[in-house]
Amino acid sequence: MQATNRQIRLRARPVGMPTADNFEAHEAPAPPIEDGQVLRRTIYLSLDPYMRGRMSDAASYAASVRLGDVMCGHTVSEVVDSRHPGFRPGDIVTGYDGWQQYAISTGKDLRKLDVKTVPITTAIGVLGMPGMTAYVGLLDIGQPKPGETVVVSAASGAVGSMVGQLAKIRGCRAVGIAGSPEKCRYVVEDLGFDACINYKTDDLVQALRAACPNGIDVDFENVGGAILAAVLRLLNRGARIPLCGMISEYNATGNPPGPNLRPLLVHRAMIRGFIVSDHYDRAPAFLQECTPLVASGRLKYREDIVDGLDAAPAALIGLFEGRNFGKLIVRVAPDPTLG
Amino acid sequence: MQATNRQIRLRARPVGMPTADNFEAHEAPAPPIEDGQVLRRTIYLSLDPYMRGRMSDAASYAASVRLGDVMCGHTVSEVVDSRHPGFRPGDIVTGYDGWQQYAISTGKDLRKLDVKTVPITTAIGVLGMPGMTAYVGLLDIGQPKPGETVVVSAASGAVGSMVGQLAKIRGCRAVGIAGSPEKCRYVVEDLGFDACINYKTDDLVQALRAACPNGIDVDFENVGGAILAAVLRLLNRGARIPLCGMISEYNATGNPPGPNLRPLLVHRAMIRGFIVSDHYDRAPAFLQECTPLVASGRLKYREDIVDGLDAAPAALIGLFEGRNFGKLIVRVAPDPTLG
Repeated sequence: MQATNRQIRLRARPVGMPTADNFEAHEAPAPPIEDGQVLRRTIYLSLDPYMRGRMSDAASYAASVRLGDVMCGHTVSEVVDSRHPGFRPGDIVTGYDGWQQYAISTGKDLRKLDVKTVPITTAIGVLGMPGMTAYVGLLDIGQPKPGETVVVSAASGAVGSMVGQLAKIRGCRAVGIAGSPEKCRYVVEDLGFDACINYKTDDLVQALRAACPNGIDVDFENVGGAILAAVLRLLNRGARIPLCGMISEYNATGNPPGPNLRPLLVHRAMIRGFIVSDHYDRAPAFLQECTPLVASGRLKYREDIVDGLDAAPAALIGLFEGRNFGKLIVRVAPDPTLG
Repeated sequence: MQATNRQIRLRARPVGMPTADNFEAHEAPAPPIEDGQVLRRTIYLSLDPYMRGRMSDAASYAASVRLGDVMCGHTVSEVVDSRHPGFRPGDIVTGYDGWQQYAISTGKDLRKLDVKTVPITTAIGVLGMPGMTAYVGLLDIGQPKPGETVVVSAASGAVGSMVGQLAKIRGCRAVGIAGSPEKCRYVVEDLGFDACINYKTDDLVQALRAACPNGIDVDFENVGGAILAAVLRLLNRGARIPLCGMISEYNATGNPPGPNLRPLLVHRAMIRGFIVSDHYDRAPAFLQECTPLVASGRLKYREDIVDGLDAAPAALIGLFEGRNFGKLIVRVAPDPTLG
């Protein structure tokens, strides 16, 4: 009996905030595999801010999802059929299979997971693309030195929580910015940041100044807008700003103006945009350093798991509204590694 | 008989564009020198955009000129009295003596000029602070590679003209932006840029696109505002933007918003503010490479010389209005090296 492959496809491009109408479900039998191919069933699907860019047809750093195509996304899957010598049914792999229950490929895009060391969800979170984004952006672009102050926005999210913890491991002061008292408490008490500011209630500049008595040396910028503008007012000489995202603008129509850039001049500071996919040569170093830290519990993470593929559109919209708390993941099928 | 030292002092801080009222003349006898000191008479005074920042009390990368103090500025002078073993009357030196006819110091801040190789005005222009600003910003921060496209605003000015010529020497396409047809013609025909855009008459984005068919790899940014915003729309992947100045904003009241920064993210591009004074360790390399190029005529420069110290205020105001054409210099006393 052939399995039915349920997919969520991009039906229409959003104007401003995405809506449920931008997506549509589609079902078709999963096709049979050919020689050299691997069929897998999606267990977990990662939902991430970059997906807003893929839904748009504006120029971005990767091609848009075409109308009618399956939405893209990182996944953890179980191999259910293989005509490839490197994969066997039951193998757990991570890949980029998108918003669907089944996927087929030659396996080049897959990485087999060691299911004994850490939970398999980490492959799309703290030890996956978001974790590596934090690693590359903070260490390679931000180049924090012991004693410096590192600020990170969206601090309770998948990337931000890793940035602050890595900053602490490197001997820095870590200051988060997040969107609720609960998130701020988590960032400080559970993740060990030195301070966290609730941007929704605090006077941002005043709160940042209090949290960063020695100024800001590195700003790992996920949000842009008012947060970046406030950070620019407190930069130290030679500050570095790895620009990872501008989630505050992703759903804007038109191009809102940016912050006044005079502080870059005055403080000889640097902003550099980066995309983790340019830096995959750093994956071995990242996994080698961080896997044991996750396994031992030194690097903490939090997941916000929603159930069922059909929950993905509303969950993604919630991500842009800051409604998730922790790495947002869709459980598409039961996790076979859990007892 | 003791000489009278005429000075121009900062009388009041400007709000918006400086006016003649912000300055006042002051005369007093030049004091006698003591052991270890050098007295010199100013021949040439350099006028540069950074001076607007020194007139303000807003935070900047250097201390403001205090009200009642002599305005600052780079100078070329003749030693007229010396009780320092390293200097003799008749020596021509470059220093930072400001808007006055005479200055005294221990000589640590002075560099003796070889008057035979190149005209002494070059020490405050193409071979001085402006030239070195171009050298450090373009080569160290912009890191142009042969075949890349380098854009520079204020292209007919002291810094911009050097940036484009150095870009050509490094095998790049050099595209200037300037404020009149005459300036554009000079930039292309005399300096050898590949193209120059008149920002006052052209559709900036359309003209830049035509002048940069392969996109922009390096933008040496002197102006900010609409020019930077236009450049950001044409960046290539991995583009570098040495941020040298934002002359479009220096006389603004308040902090105008900046450009939308999404292109930095999309194109993995970098903006880095810099100040030449952080990079004086590069002076020997700069002078070694560029002095022969100036002497041989390969590096061209143009000077806009006004006569008499009292002409300095109006000339500086004209600089912010783009009225000068070439390196703006005040001739404070006759040049003894000219026949």
